[in-house]
Amino acid sequence: MAIDTPALVIDLDMMDRNLRTMAAFADLHQVKLRPHAKMHKSAELAKLQMAAGAVGVCVQKTSEAEALVAGGVHNIFISNQVIAPVKLARVAAMTRQLAPLGGKLAICVDSIEGVRRLAQCMHKGQIASSNASTIDVFIELNVGQNRCGVEPGRPAVVLALEIRKHPALNFAGLQAYHGKAQHMRSAADRRDAIVSVIEAVSQTRQLIENEGITVGLITGAGTGTAPLEAASKLYGELQAGSYLFMDADYAANEPATGQPLFKHALFVKTQVISVHAGHAVCDAGHKSHAIDSGMPKVHAFSSRSVLEYTNGGDEHGILKPAAGSSRLPSLGSMLWLIPGHCDPTVNLHNEMIGVRGGLLKGVVERIITVDARGALT
Amino acid sequence: MAIDTPALVIDLDMMDRNLRTMAAFADLHQVKLRPHAKMHKSAELAKLQMAAGAVGVCVQKTSEAEALVAGGVHNIFISNQVIAPVKLARVAAMTRQLAPLGGKLAICVDSIEGVRRLAQCMHKGQIASSNASTIDVFIELNVGQNRCGVEPGRPAVVLALEIRKHPALNFAGLQAYHGKAQHMRSAADRRDAIVSVIEAVSQTRQLIENEGITVGLITGAGTGTAPLEAASKLYGELQAGSYLFMDADYAANEPATGQPLFKHALFVKTQVISVHAGHAVCDAGHKSHAIDSGMPKVHAFSSRSVLEYTNGGDEHGILKPAAGSSRLPSLGSMLWLIPGHCDPTVNLHNEMIGVRGGLLKGVVERIITVDARGALT
Repeated sequence: MAIDTPALVIDLDMMDRNLRTMAAFADLHQVKLRPHAKMHKSAELAKLQMAAGAVGVCVQKTSEAEALVAGGVHNIFISNQVIAPVKLARVAAMTRQLAPLGGKLAICVDSIEGVRRLAQCMHKGQIASSNASTIDVFIELNVGQNRCGVEPGRPAVVLALEIRKHPALNFAGLQAYHGKAQHMRSAADRRDAIVSVIEAVSQTRQLIENEGITVGLITGAGTGTAPLEAASKLYGELQAGSYLFMDADYAANEPATGQPLFKHALFVKTQVISVHAGHAVCDAGHKSHAIDSGMPKVHAFSSRSVLEYTNGGDEHGILKPAAGSSRLPSLGSMLWLIPGHCDPTVNLHNEMIGVRGGLLKGVVERIITVDARGALT
Repeated sequence: MAIDTPALVIDLDMMDRNLRTMAAFADLHQVKLRPHAKMHKSAELAKLQMAAGAVGVCVQKTSEAEALVAGGVHNIFISNQVIAPVKLARVAAMTRQLAPLGGKLAICVDSIEGVRRLAQCMHKGQIASSNASTIDVFIELNVGQNRCGVEPGRPAVVLALEIRKHPALNFAGLQAYHGKAQHMRSAADRRDAIVSVIEAVSQTRQLIENEGITVGLITGAGTGTAPLEAASKLYGELQAGSYLFMDADYAANEPATGQPLFKHALFVKTQVISVHAGHAVCDAGHKSHAIDSGMPKVHAFSSRSVLEYTNGGDEHGILKPAAGSSRLPSLGSMLWLIPGHCDPTVNLHNEMIGVRGGLLKGVVERIITVDARGALT
């Protein structure tokens, strides 16, 4: 493959397999899939996921939603807090843009002020355009991440009552995502965490329904805990995203019962540029892959070629033979790294190179644009 | 300032001050300045540095050099190993492009194979174009970084002799950069490290000159150790780059005697999107700033507003009042983060917003493009 390095490469066969595995899993549990597109930031991949059965995608940022809408994705949930009026005006504009296309936008709230600002921007947009579009609004619950989200119970009821006051806002349900639980290594720890989540969310739903307000949907879950939420009979929608590429961090989790088996499909291709007595140096550093979830793993095509990657700075990686092996790669030889965390790795690249037929002997089938790369606002 | 968040903001007054401080420092020591443009990846800023006296800039990647050449920067040193023939052909093409413009390209080598590949590509290019351009070649020495570079002493002599065999290669000197020393907190540790470097480089220069080969220039140094190399009478050129923006990591170094005082000039503007009993959440996570050198610091405009930033994932930051303070920022309020490491932070953004007259009351003077963002090859 004539791919210059470093480059982000997708093994399309593995990606397709992951896509099918997740579709079958969602079918089995009769749960909807709304994968998180913050991971791949690509309209092409979002549409591929929807063609495989996903109802839409999630994003974290208004500008990510805009990039995907521009790429033809019409069902998007901004699973995050948006507070700036300048952004909420853009959110409102998207609802008006999507309505005649049969599309739909949803968003999270976790404060009265957030609800009011959203309602005001939706209202202003309606007056300006005489277009009575609405937006689905989910209350984000803090279920253990301790980041955004109101506490389960009464605070959520107060918010639901507030949402109902505004005609442009459609109270759609609860967002209950436990980010930290995704990366708990032990299957038992993940189960314990999600058992608590399910209890808190169930009670909150009951409290809100006691007010005569229907809770349409509970949405959440990531690749690490999806089997638990899927089996809960509470969650109607899974937001897992990383399953498509499967990074080194998720692969390090102890598998749980019923956990679908995903394969690594995303790699940073890199080249050895310097060789020394005890180490070699490759041309991929942390400007090529994110290191927030640890260093990348060197993909081992055989047990004779096990190398360990350590940080060599922005533009370099240091390679040493793993224990039991003494072979260093030669100057100019190619390696494939499995990123520790796919989301921020993809965000470093403008494109992903899709290869069919394996990393070593395959051919480039297509170039997939990272449409929302750097879409931060 | 109507800057949506998160955004990368330059305090232009502070940047200009840093520019003048470094120019005066280089003048004082009668040493040339060739700042590392891997830090800002911007042709506009490279030209600003050259207008302030820099002889040219360094880059780490062939594609960075191409982006800067396209932006009108004509004196570039690729201070790294380039091994792929496909890249070396592009390097050779740039030398032919720059020659009639009075420009110049330089590059590093650390292996016989690397020298031969470079010579071959330069030679092929000359035959194809009948244009006898040459390239300056520096031998990279391993002076403690243990990454690329030949060992000081005899291995460097062997390489110098090899370089001299190839008419298109002009042996220009030694690259001796100790990256790890830049971030040693203690001034004494940095001094000890650079004293050893100077001794090894001096001896190597002598060995090469014993072969009748002139060592034209010793180049190296970063913002952390520049006073030591500048005073060495050995280094003719400093490669410091971070001085322009001054990140949190460099600011944590104990200042040494003669160390110029640089000011923070680069910030990630961020907004509070969620407020809770003990913490607030802002909209800048590690897709907005690099965390390889630690978390960003929250810029404190007064001693009453000291906040601590902890990692909230790709898109969020968690803010808590630092000890002795109990004030949390309100929903929608703006904060400015000082990145831990400016180089990979800039690489996450498409542009830098230059503000004149201070962060709070200033006006946007210009938008500076990150020309080489994502230029990895």
